[in-house]
Amino acid sequence: MTRLATALVLLPFLYAVIEFAPPEVFLAVAAITIWLACWECYCMLGVAGARPFKWLGLSGALAVVWSFSGFAPVFEPTLPLVALTLVSVAAAMGRREEPQAMVQAAVSTVMPVVFIGLALSYLIALRGLPGGRGSDLLMLLFFSTIAGDTAAYYVGTNLGRHRMAPRISPKKSWEGAAGGLGGAVAMAFVARGIFVPEMAWYHALFLGLILGSVGMLGDLAASVVKRATGVKDSSGLLPGHGGMLDRMDSLLFAAPVLYYYYQGFLQGTV
Amino acid sequence: MTRLATALVLLPFLYAVIEFAPPEVFLAVAAITIWLACWECYCMLGVAGARPFKWLGLSGALAVVWSFSGFAPVFEPTLPLVALTLVSVAAAMGRREEPQAMVQAAVSTVMPVVFIGLALSYLIALRGLPGGRGSDLLMLLFFSTIAGDTAAYYVGTNLGRHRMAPRISPKKSWEGAAGGLGGAVAMAFVARGIFVPEMAWYHALFLGLILGSVGMLGDLAASVVKRATGVKDSSGLLPGHGGMLDRMDSLLFAAPVLYYYYQGFLQGTV
Repeated sequence: MTRLATALVLLPFLYAVIEFAPPEVFLAVAAITIWLACWECYCMLGVAGARPFKWLGLSGALAVVWSFSGFAPVFEPTLPLVALTLVSVAAAMGRREEPQAMVQAAVSTVMPVVFIGLALSYLIALRGLPGGRGSDLLMLLFFSTIAGDTAAYYVGTNLGRHRMAPRISPKKSWEGAAGGLGGAVAMAFVARGIFVPEMAWYHALFLGLILGSVGMLGDLAASVVKRATGVKDSSGLLPGHGGMLDRMDSLLFAAPVLYYYYQGFLQGTV
Repeated sequence: MTRLATALVLLPFLYAVIEFAPPEVFLAVAAITIWLACWECYCMLGVAGARPFKWLGLSGALAVVWSFSGFAPVFEPTLPLVALTLVSVAAAMGRREEPQAMVQAAVSTVMPVVFIGLALSYLIALRGLPGGRGSDLLMLLFFSTIAGDTAAYYVGTNLGRHRMAPRISPKKSWEGAAGGLGGAVAMAFVARGIFVPEMAWYHALFLGLILGSVGMLGDLAASVVKRATGVKDSSGLLPGHGGMLDRMDSLLFAAPVLYYYYQGFLQGTV
């Protein structure tokens, strides 16, 4: 019930921001979301005993986000990435600890920015696609991944027999994965009908399959990190949904994959 | 003596490749160099007990290198980076090990590509700068960092009293660091005189100081990784000089810093 109530508040907000917000507002919402997801990741790493330079990494993540906005036309994402590696290494040297701890400090500072900050910044790249079709593709992305998550959960709970990854996430089953893929494909077709009717039907099929698969991979990856660090939810931020990272994990790979799918196959046709 | 003999073979080769080789040849030499440096890093990580997906990472590093070449105009470095994170995570999931080992496998695959592959690819970006001045700036880069290394070594050996980082590299002293900076500045002026005489003198001063400093930081970082993994030389590839990574470590940060220094302060003036 809490889960449903939170969803009923968040989904209309999400829809409004994606379809109607001016670019500055979308960028601000994306930046806060990504910032929170990285924050949760640094907290989990801290629980596990790593000592990342949290504020440095969070600043780096924001710089990566900014580099994806149209407001920074000559500012490519590689600049904040290499700047962050340089400053992280310098800061790690300054701690004068054991060499292993120094390497861990630098690596655990940079990693969340690459795996979360850079990955989720593609949401901004998608929103900024020419012709204003980015918003519609984002709706397709959210339809597919949310439907995939939800269908995987309900099919898995009710029909799950063969466990997929008992050591990582005991509740995940192959039946749930198949249900999730089916849900993702179904909702990709629904989203095509509503938002991008001119897109060929086979793109909806491929996108449903691909986004559903990499969505589950992101979900599984976040589970592995939580299991490895011994944390259950990334935070208690969203009642019934865990933390921001728990809700965004299926977008980690789906966002960049959709962006490059567009560049490769959809550009000029939608 | 071995060290000197190797240097006498390598330096004229380096000069010829930087100043006269066609872009394809420069790219090939840079690709081989970066590939070897990443290879050595994966070997060191293996010695330390990590189990990176070495071939996957090495392919990712080559894709990053390629994305920096003018031959791949629409292929930004972020594409191979996110593709590598996706495939590394998928491969790590496939190993079905303990969660900690999966996280370590994915992280140790991606990290060398970010810290070494991406960083050293800026050598290619520098070579490709408009107006053909990239070659001359690369000569300034090599003059400064090699002079910095060499001066730090000789001053440190002869005058070193105050040890800088006894736990990382017992031979490094503050006297050596000061000598290295002096050497880097001196050779930046010499390189300016020979290769970029139209550059204002204070740029030579700043570049000597900055490249000398971040060169030492890269050197120190490589020492930390070697110390953390318990490896002495990154490999025995270059007689008297250790491995490729040992020779390239002072360029890890110096190459991107020079590139962005050019973008920020030199563009249009040299």
